[in-house]
Amino acid sequence: MMVVEYADDIIVIDCGLMFPEEDMPGIDLVIPDVTYLVEHKDKVRGIIITHGHEDHIGALAYVLPQLDVPIYCAPLPHGLISVKLKESRVHNARIHEVRPGGSFQLGQFNIEFVAMCHSIPDAAGLIIRTPVGTIVHSGDFKLDYTPVDCRPSDLSRLAQVGAEGVLLLMADSTHVELAGYTPSEKVVGETISNIMSAAPGRVIVTTFASLVARIQQVMDAAARFNRKVFIAGRGMNEIVKMALKMGYLRAADGLLGELSEMHRFPANRVALITTGSQGEPTSALVRIANREHREVQIKQGDTVIISASPIPGNESVVSKTIDSLFRQGAQVFYDRIAKVHVHGHASQEELRLLQSLIRPQYFVPVHGEYRHLKLHAQLARDMGVPEENVFILEDGDILELAPGGGKVTGHVPASNVYVDGVSVGDINGVVLRNRKMLSQDGIVVAIVTLDASTGHLAVRPDIVSRGFVDPEAGRALMEESRDIVTRLFEEEKQRISDSTVISNRVRDLLSKFYYDRTRRRPMVLPVLVTV
Amino acid sequence: MMVVEYADDIIVIDCGLMFPEEDMPGIDLVIPDVTYLVEHKDKVRGIIITHGHEDHIGALAYVLPQLDVPIYCAPLPHGLISVKLKESRVHNARIHEVRPGGSFQLGQFNIEFVAMCHSIPDAAGLIIRTPVGTIVHSGDFKLDYTPVDCRPSDLSRLAQVGAEGVLLLMADSTHVELAGYTPSEKVVGETISNIMSAAPGRVIVTTFASLVARIQQVMDAAARFNRKVFIAGRGMNEIVKMALKMGYLRAADGLLGELSEMHRFPANRVALITTGSQGEPTSALVRIANREHREVQIKQGDTVIISASPIPGNESVVSKTIDSLFRQGAQVFYDRIAKVHVHGHASQEELRLLQSLIRPQYFVPVHGEYRHLKLHAQLARDMGVPEENVFILEDGDILELAPGGGKVTGHVPASNVYVDGVSVGDINGVVLRNRKMLSQDGIVVAIVTLDASTGHLAVRPDIVSRGFVDPEAGRALMEESRDIVTRLFEEEKQRISDSTVISNRVRDLLSKFYYDRTRRRPMVLPVLVTV
Repeated sequence: MMVVEYADDIIVIDCGLMFPEEDMPGIDLVIPDVTYLVEHKDKVRGIIITHGHEDHIGALAYVLPQLDVPIYCAPLPHGLISVKLKESRVHNARIHEVRPGGSFQLGQFNIEFVAMCHSIPDAAGLIIRTPVGTIVHSGDFKLDYTPVDCRPSDLSRLAQVGAEGVLLLMADSTHVELAGYTPSEKVVGETISNIMSAAPGRVIVTTFASLVARIQQVMDAAARFNRKVFIAGRGMNEIVKMALKMGYLRAADGLLGELSEMHRFPANRVALITTGSQGEPTSALVRIANREHREVQIKQGDTVIISASPIPGNESVVSKTIDSLFRQGAQVFYDRIAKVHVHGHASQEELRLLQSLIRPQYFVPVHGEYRHLKLHAQLARDMGVPEENVFILEDGDILELAPGGGKVTGHVPASNVYVDGVSVGDINGVVLRNRKMLSQDGIVVAIVTLDASTGHLAVRPDIVSRGFVDPEAGRALMEESRDIVTRLFEEEKQRISDSTVISNRVRDLLSKFYYDRTRRRPMVLPVLVTV
Repeated sequence: MMVVEYADDIIVIDCGLMFPEEDMPGIDLVIPDVTYLVEHKDKVRGIIITHGHEDHIGALAYVLPQLDVPIYCAPLPHGLISVKLKESRVHNARIHEVRPGGSFQLGQFNIEFVAMCHSIPDAAGLIIRTPVGTIVHSGDFKLDYTPVDCRPSDLSRLAQVGAEGVLLLMADSTHVELAGYTPSEKVVGETISNIMSAAPGRVIVTTFASLVARIQQVMDAAARFNRKVFIAGRGMNEIVKMALKMGYLRAADGLLGELSEMHRFPANRVALITTGSQGEPTSALVRIANREHREVQIKQGDTVIISASPIPGNESVVSKTIDSLFRQGAQVFYDRIAKVHVHGHASQEELRLLQSLIRPQYFVPVHGEYRHLKLHAQLARDMGVPEENVFILEDGDILELAPGGGKVTGHVPASNVYVDGVSVGDINGVVLRNRKMLSQDGIVVAIVTLDASTGHLAVRPDIVSRGFVDPEAGRALMEESRDIVTRLFEEEKQRISDSTVISNRVRDLLSKFYYDRTRRRPMVLPVLVTV
């Protein structure tokens, strides 16, 4: 999420979510902190969506109830957002459709959508005219002179605006590490065609559901090699239906079949498109790989194409899925061994081309981790943006552009807001630290029941554990630790009345005992009951 | 670990460990199950080590106490194993040093070591002569015609043996996904020299401690550009010391300095070699990146070279380390943006060359995940090994080679043995499942204290949670759940005496309550105390 503010007007660019990282166990989603926007509600004129990926639209369902403002986006994002908001029971959203080349006014800002090519149709860059100069925001993009379903990025419009003079460029940094140009989507179509023409049996292709161009290419290849196309997986079915209806996908009559009818067709007349390119445990492909899918089982002669690359963090689940498919006799093609995927972001030469067309006075690299922003900043400097006019911003940083120059002048609250179940924002660092600790060596609960009148043990202490030792193997250890706690109270001559003192003593005693015996450090949770 | 058996003789090849995967929380190490070997102790003639990496020697400290047999290995593995065994207090190991070209007899097996090039010195392939034919085991290897510290792989010896006729080839599959040849170690030396010659300040290089050739190249470059070399990190210090002593590393007098003296040298006269290439939390580089290192802080002008690629599973911690270094002003070179690393395994053309020299009757791909074994099997078939003579074996599979052909005839116990703290093997699936569950939504412990005589509640139930909700934010929820448990006992007219029934009721009641309220599923642990 990016916020642009001038005088009494605020516009918001994108409203995405982040999937939880390794150190956020149990978290479902992470959304942006919108404290600043809520505090300045009356200034916020609208949310502009550059394209329909989750990391650009996924937080709308959480943010809109706090911030009732209109949304501006192209037709496909409109469709995708509507589905999401309906699922989350957020009603009455005001969504305005904007087509490439279209523009609209929000307060003192004039915003124009520029067609950009990305791994989803209807991606847009933004030209934002402000009283102090023009801002160009690339959105997520690559150039791709021969795209399959989207229009190529509108270089001539960008060149025009560049020639008029641009105050600030903000551009996609995700793939700045890669030299050269990102290959065209067309390349993948050729690979898929080659594989499909030679495959002796069924061809099963998995990709991102929103990668409509890829789905089109699979359908085209299937039509060419006389295969019927079937779809497995709810997400894939939904998007294909929407894309067909909106005209982003074209399928000849009779090309698509019902999955339940697939078994009626000879194997070499079948192409199956599924979800699961990221190894998602409940996706169709993973259920197929684990022999848990009701309608599809892998047979000798099947060919599987993983037409995607693993998003960082998913490498190992994707690898496991590939292993399972091979183990069941499928031939598997994936990105390390075949050109079955190209990504949707600009590489270095494309980023240089953008710089040379826009020639901005100021530059802020956006999208990507710190290393990407840093490398993109270096690229911009090498292309002639003065060093002092390039700003690497982290979440919450405020950059002020004024006649005297640009300056980071402060910081607004922008920490991660965790979504876990229905609750938003009540999970904090303590809860996450506890979850991590629990996952390492488990927990031991020691129940100490004291007689209120005497302060002595009322019954023998009870000790239960989970995730620490095997209950059978650890029985003796547990009994011994009950003895130790019992002795603590017997040996104590004076009555201890402070429950915190008692708890700490029990905790320290048991922690040390378990560590000495096992070299593990379970969480020890003493519970005092007074009867 | 690989076992070869003929009549009354068993030899073991390698004895490695595996680092825990994502679904093994809290586990320190995974070692092989040696049940079969222990049951056939009297037949086991020795353990042969192909090289000194952890995945080939790391389980010796656990296995030797169960299996008192001699070890055969080259000098560097000998040194590394000795250090490990000493740390683990395993004494009296019988280690026999074998040099490339050397051979020895174990029962009816004759074993010859062949020099192979890998990312550690003294790697060996094995030529095992058995009464029924010759086995060739590649070990981990690449060809590398211009290695830096190791001898090149001894192709002529392999060719000779191949010409004599080979029954079975077992070869490294790890990098079979990659086309072409693996680049020579020399390539990295050139990159490091170029970076060092241009670096305005200190150059900090991290790599695997055992990658002695890389360390040599950093030292050579440092000497050339008049920089003093310092070492940070215990593991790096130990290996450098051992490698210098044994002659695997060469350093001119005065090249190496004490880390505590580093501050006395101008920045552009310093090269620092550290541990931390995998983002290990306690390594020198990660402590430097997090500003937690006592002697080294990043300064403007520092250059860091991550001369390694992340081992699968470490991608995100390595990326975070790179981000932190950039954030502190270092220039960072890493494998995605510069040729700062080559790996130590053969790519497709090298594997084809090996096949063409050995021309084995049977082939078993080894080392690597299932997909690698499968692709390597296909490569061998394409090179002429008959389809029915290629076997993809998984852990524990028994392959019998008899005059009539090869056949998988059974399976020995070979599941993962988990090491956690001092205990080996007492962690099972239940404990791991509990740890995973605990990490997702935490735990709620409900303590129900009943009066033994009446069966009624003796005191109000106590409920404590960890990792479920923030204690403050969740206070009302916890109080409400105490009320619910209280009501359960009040409403119950008949006295429930079966403690399992009571526990299950409490568990079900609370699980449902928490799920309805939060859509989370904490582990609910009822504890009954009877007073």
